[in-house]
Amino acid sequence: MSGEDAPVQQQNAVDQKQDSKPSEEPKTESEPVAAGAADAPAAAADAATTEKVPEEEAFTYRALVLTGYGGYDKVKVQVKKGKPALKAAEVLVRVKACGLNFADLMARQGLYDRLPSPPVSPGMECSGLVEAVGEEVTDRKVGDKVMVLSRFGLWQEVVAVPANHTILMPEGMSFEEAAAIPVNYITAYMMLFDFGHLRPNQSVLIHSAAGGVGTAATQLCKTVKDVTVFGTASASKHEAIGQAGVTHPIDYRTKDYVEEVRKISPKGLDIVLDPLGGSDTHKAYNLLKPMGKLITYGAANMLAGQKKNLLAVAKNWYHQFSIHALSLIQSNKSVCGFHLGYLDGETELIHEAMDAILELYKQGKIKPRIDSTWHLEQVGDAMRKMQERNNIGKVILTTDPMPEEEKKEEAPAADKKKEDKKKEDKKKEDKKKDEGKKEEKKDDKKKEEPKKEEEEKKEEAKKEEK
Amino acid sequence: MSGEDAPVQQQNAVDQKQDSKPSEEPKTESEPVAAGAADAPAAAADAATTEKVPEEEAFTYRALVLTGYGGYDKVKVQVKKGKPALKAAEVLVRVKACGLNFADLMARQGLYDRLPSPPVSPGMECSGLVEAVGEEVTDRKVGDKVMVLSRFGLWQEVVAVPANHTILMPEGMSFEEAAAIPVNYITAYMMLFDFGHLRPNQSVLIHSAAGGVGTAATQLCKTVKDVTVFGTASASKHEAIGQAGVTHPIDYRTKDYVEEVRKISPKGLDIVLDPLGGSDTHKAYNLLKPMGKLITYGAANMLAGQKKNLLAVAKNWYHQFSIHALSLIQSNKSVCGFHLGYLDGETELIHEAMDAILELYKQGKIKPRIDSTWHLEQVGDAMRKMQERNNIGKVILTTDPMPEEEKKEEAPAADKKKEDKKKEDKKKEDKKKDEGKKEEKKDDKKKEEPKKEEEEKKEEAKKEEK
Repeated sequence: MSGEDAPVQQQNAVDQKQDSKPSEEPKTESEPVAAGAADAPAAAADAATTEKVPEEEAFTYRALVLTGYGGYDKVKVQVKKGKPALKAAEVLVRVKACGLNFADLMARQGLYDRLPSPPVSPGMECSGLVEAVGEEVTDRKVGDKVMVLSRFGLWQEVVAVPANHTILMPEGMSFEEAAAIPVNYITAYMMLFDFGHLRPNQSVLIHSAAGGVGTAATQLCKTVKDVTVFGTASASKHEAIGQAGVTHPIDYRTKDYVEEVRKISPKGLDIVLDPLGGSDTHKAYNLLKPMGKLITYGAANMLAGQKKNLLAVAKNWYHQFSIHALSLIQSNKSVCGFHLGYLDGETELIHEAMDAILELYKQGKIKPRIDSTWHLEQVGDAMRKMQERNNIGKVILTTDPMPEEEKKEEAPAADKKKEDKKKEDKKKEDKKKDEGKKEEKKDDKKKEEPKKEEEEKKEEAKKEEK
Repeated sequence: MSGEDAPVQQQNAVDQKQDSKPSEEPKTESEPVAAGAADAPAAAADAATTEKVPEEEAFTYRALVLTGYGGYDKVKVQVKKGKPALKAAEVLVRVKACGLNFADLMARQGLYDRLPSPPVSPGMECSGLVEAVGEEVTDRKVGDKVMVLSRFGLWQEVVAVPANHTILMPEGMSFEEAAAIPVNYITAYMMLFDFGHLRPNQSVLIHSAAGGVGTAATQLCKTVKDVTVFGTASASKHEAIGQAGVTHPIDYRTKDYVEEVRKISPKGLDIVLDPLGGSDTHKAYNLLKPMGKLITYGAANMLAGQKKNLLAVAKNWYHQFSIHALSLIQSNKSVCGFHLGYLDGETELIHEAMDAILELYKQGKIKPRIDSTWHLEQVGDAMRKMQERNNIGKVILTTDPMPEEEKKEEAPAADKKKEDKKKEDKKKEDKKKDEGKKEEKKDDKKKEEPKKEEEEKKEEAKKEEK
């Protein structure tokens, strides 16, 4: 039950009151448009309502809307009319790029209680340009490049958000990078340095080391002297995570990661980051040295297949880790829970972490790795890529309009360099479609056991169909 | 159920194998001598046996021995013959002073599983002079002043201990101070700085702020900028703990400490140190802010009266705190357990903490507060003072021989300056004896509610008799 690329449940962290949520666009007729994930019903309504601003009725923008819990096709592109009303302490942001997070996948299945009921716009992080500022806002101006963190609602072309939920982008940072930083890096930073108190010569286990949080955590570990990083990922990603800083890559699909860690570090580890939950949290606890810290931040094991898998959810609950005070005392261990989505209102803590992260970015010590960039219309494929653990690094949405020819091809956007490889992938994808599944493969040449992986995928596909 | 002065369960931290324990004195006839705690049976045997060293048979030394579980009188002075055998990696230490810890009180009642069954010498920390060194020892020499940490066995005039369980005393440090430092300061240091990651502007709740760990923790908090310290203690100790650095002293006997903290810090606290256990651990958890850390390090609530109180033990178990992973995630909190006595073999961690502590000592930023010093024969009274929460700072035993006249008086030793006050206390003590109890009072002039406290003590005395 080890899941890869599973920065589950981490997300935005702003004191996002209902009355200031970014999805507060004017109540207006929304129109479904041709979306990659396709067949959107026309009825999808807006989540929030405010007064219409008549003179700006001509203003339209696209938004992704979760229309109901379920599979990838539940998130649809809709066109909204009327500029979102701007409060005194808010700024209007023209969104350029958005980050995908595991919590978005959980939310789509109805497994994430920080997202209001559908219809609602998901999205916890984005980057963009300030297009207007509220009358009380003094530290942001039109034209500023910003990153935004919010509890939800950022997967739209235009959002109104509290100014203190924005962070100025440093010089030279791309919008894609900016959309890849907030959730993953703040999560990794606060876990490793506040709860974990990571110091030189220590050892850390990072599950899903090729995922968003995994990549961020690996890079942050390397900012501390002589830290040993154990990282799980499927074999095809080992070269990539090794280059990124993982000292000991472990293929959780073919090996028992507990045994692998014990072989190298018989005494155990100083820190284990656990995005998996269930029985893996028990394993994490048992792997700790005295004075070790287990930091659990998700329940990726709950996520099995495209739609909610009740068996996986029940299993996760059944195996949920719990601990008594006296056991902790006798073993000198620490158990911490982290979830950026529940840090509502802790803007000071968030900004403190973000300052440190951007300082490391400026020093060239960290750099977000973008796996792939997708158009809004392709959000379903983007989510699939992440959920099926095929990404290395961050999966990004761009608000750039999708060229007509691409729409026909349904290929991912951006990243021209990858185009050729994608064409190759496309062929394999088509082959798979014949088997009833549409999947993306990358770095196939590096893969050691393509057969085995393919079989596993088939099994997963079967599960999804159930 | 709030206990004062309760650094429970913390203790020594050396990889104390059975084959290298300091109580490894030669097997020889021990003779009970007149002890303050009195009526010791002659049968008390040594805990460990090794070969006799014939040429050193004339060598005798006094040792405190726990002869069975129970009240204060179970710890007796015995005279042992023959010099302890010295292993290659050990040093022989002529003990000058010993520290008392809450775990010693728990151990006497049979509530501490790190002490072997009686008869056995307790004692987790001491200071003294190196009298001989084993053949492999290169970093210690005869005449060195050292502090010693061990799992047990240090309440003796002479001990053989592994050299790496000793720490050189800095210039100008007294033996009493040296015996007061290891357990309390290492415990406070590792809790606040490793698990707690204490930073400027944070807030900390310290229970039993006048106790050994409480005093050390308060001083260590003051080494960090703008830390707010909430400290519980009975009202008579508030002036003392205020001077020591507690920002907000709270009288747990007359007030609800949770309410008092909330009045001043409505959002809660960054760190709570919990030596109490049971229902107080729940209160501690609920008092945490997001990203807050609860560090539980004892179960002082178990200790009610002189002998094991089964009701208190059961109550503590019944109310024991436990936590689920998902609850931790949703509240962004950390729960840590600490107990120096279970850090066997972690000599590197111990020395790392001790280096930092001694550096702070040399800079004059910390200084152990000695409450009182007692002769070995007075160990019963010393334990009573600590258990009845009448100490402010550390309770110390000295190996200096007890003058004959003092033996008659049964007064505490040392600390000449306190002599006069002690005489006063003595009178009150005598008065109490008439009521069937022998107790010590200090700082009576500062006490705001002497009547109330006295009544409480009577009640406690009644409990003990049961």
